[in-house]
Amino acid sequence: MSPTTDRNLEFDAFSDAVIVAMETALAAARQGVRGANPLVGAVIIDADGTVLAIGRHLGAGTPHAEADAINSLRGTRRDLSAATMVVTLEPCDHQGRTAPCSQAIIDAGIGNVVYAVDDPHAQAAGGADRLRLEGINVRSGLMDTEALDMNRQWFAAVKAGRPFVTARLAQTVDSRIAAADGTSQWITSPESRQDSHTLRGRVDAIVVGTGTVMADNPRLTARGPDGSESAHQPLRVVMGLREVAADAAVRHRQDPGFLQLHTHDPAVVVRELHSRGVGHLMIEGGSKISAAFLAAGLVDELIVYLAPTLLGSGIPALNDLGIGTLAQAQQWEWDATTTGPVERLGPDLKLTLMPAKAPATTNAEGH
Amino acid sequence: MSPTTDRNLEFDAFSDAVIVAMETALAAARQGVRGANPLVGAVIIDADGTVLAIGRHLGAGTPHAEADAINSLRGTRRDLSAATMVVTLEPCDHQGRTAPCSQAIIDAGIGNVVYAVDDPHAQAAGGADRLRLEGINVRSGLMDTEALDMNRQWFAAVKAGRPFVTARLAQTVDSRIAAADGTSQWITSPESRQDSHTLRGRVDAIVVGTGTVMADNPRLTARGPDGSESAHQPLRVVMGLREVAADAAVRHRQDPGFLQLHTHDPAVVVRELHSRGVGHLMIEGGSKISAAFLAAGLVDELIVYLAPTLLGSGIPALNDLGIGTLAQAQQWEWDATTTGPVERLGPDLKLTLMPAKAPATTNAEGH
Repeated sequence: MSPTTDRNLEFDAFSDAVIVAMETALAAARQGVRGANPLVGAVIIDADGTVLAIGRHLGAGTPHAEADAINSLRGTRRDLSAATMVVTLEPCDHQGRTAPCSQAIIDAGIGNVVYAVDDPHAQAAGGADRLRLEGINVRSGLMDTEALDMNRQWFAAVKAGRPFVTARLAQTVDSRIAAADGTSQWITSPESRQDSHTLRGRVDAIVVGTGTVMADNPRLTARGPDGSESAHQPLRVVMGLREVAADAAVRHRQDPGFLQLHTHDPAVVVRELHSRGVGHLMIEGGSKISAAFLAAGLVDELIVYLAPTLLGSGIPALNDLGIGTLAQAQQWEWDATTTGPVERLGPDLKLTLMPAKAPATTNAEGH
Repeated sequence: MSPTTDRNLEFDAFSDAVIVAMETALAAARQGVRGANPLVGAVIIDADGTVLAIGRHLGAGTPHAEADAINSLRGTRRDLSAATMVVTLEPCDHQGRTAPCSQAIIDAGIGNVVYAVDDPHAQAAGGADRLRLEGINVRSGLMDTEALDMNRQWFAAVKAGRPFVTARLAQTVDSRIAAADGTSQWITSPESRQDSHTLRGRVDAIVVGTGTVMADNPRLTARGPDGSESAHQPLRVVMGLREVAADAAVRHRQDPGFLQLHTHDPAVVVRELHSRGVGHLMIEGGSKISAAFLAAGLVDELIVYLAPTLLGSGIPALNDLGIGTLAQAQQWEWDATTTGPVERLGPDLKLTLMPAKAPATTNAEGH
């Protein structure tokens, strides 16, 4: 039977074992966390299709998926010259916080590599060429649609030369972040707040507005359940024109520093932070700051901590997005990757969304 | 070893088989739907503890749990004189839309009955006495705390002599029910709207405000996916002082009728509808009506259809609940019974909440 669609043509170029391995690699990728790096999964199969190892990337600073898979074979002294590394993204050729995956594949003696989609990042790309130079058989394009789609916001951010941006809201069911009198500590549960600290420990920078600094005087550090500061701390960024007070808590820590950006423009903030090497940025509010990033189409991931409470009045989580009529509503979708779209955190729900694939409005990137 | 707690004393009065059966009955009860009738489960066990049948009640108009269990044994011609019916609520002795459960148990020849908690409803109670008069061995109180808690809002409604009240919100993630220009059709997906129609087909009455009638001109009928009207239709109630227009769609259907209540007071509405035999009432909005029932503590179940969209402005799902500060926030909890607290409906999430057990405010019944 001859193939009748492009899809079949694509698949015909690869063995069933490689196709199954790529499906497994995509599933492994989805177990990761979003951020400065994309979700990536890797599977090593033997010549007869036996799965030897499965790896996934669990976020910036942890091993890449290829290394994770290779590490799990450490000590087996197996000849991998007939084996295939099947990976959802082109192996990097870049010495960053971790060693280049191209070198790890070469060192492991793996003879074949199949990857889904090219690395768009100028700094990290070139892995395939490097592998070919070493005589490794390299092919690509298998399930590239799925691999691109899974990380479409990350690809868009890389292409735009800006950080991956997570926005975090902590709200009641009726989307209030403070009561009528301004009281806001605490809308959500200790479990949700600890999860926020875990996120802080994963991002490169946090942005809040001057209003939040004046209202709450936050430290903006990543802290453990016992209040102790986590090993990795994000850059603490305040945006807005009012000068942050000399004794503000956000200034208290030296490394990494505190930064005030005297602007209301999210585009200026992402540009400035990108130039400082920020790969993952988290927006923590308040309403105006969150809305400004959302209205500008500069949010790649939206995390909503939803407390099972009602206020009926007070400060809404978002204010004006520049939307006048329902047809212009921003379209999102529940993010089924990583922890799933809904997670229970004590009494709260954690909802994770990503911009919907099909644009419903034309005035915002990613929407 | 002698029992050292009340809990142990309670359990010592019942065999292990009966205790396990009650746990099973409670789990079966949780598969039902909330409404005019409570969640009830029933398990029939043999003398040696073998489970013969499991029944649950699936909502007003469907068989009670006891009958459901007995029905599943139909045709087996088994001698049940040594068997035990284990049920989470006292069997009813009332001819309503279904026959009395007491009679069904007598007719089945079941020799023993254990139930968790007395039926609080004057009309339906008396089942235990009736069974005893027929020589059946009846005991009660096993896991009554769990059985009461599962239906605590239903018990409260019966005690207060009012319908069980469900409030339904269909909103964006930022809790808007219409855009800035008033456009509101449709915030949620066809799947969510069909689920709303299923709910309408289950309740005795729907309440909206005059504002909703004027803005949307809804029919307020229960309809199937093809638009055809469902067999059971709720009473359509409009509350508010402005007269509903003679040609309003809500008036179009005769049976059951349309009713306007010239009041803004939810207490008047529930009193009036209770006197008309309404056992389950659904509040469909708008913001003022939903908020009025919530502020009065007259909502037993809150269903939120959450569309993965953002508006940033427009009409909030709720307005003033009379709450000034965060400590007064209404405390709810996700309702893990029935469909679970979170259900996926097409692109939307359906969240189901019930008032939290521990009161956080003192000014509203059930909160």
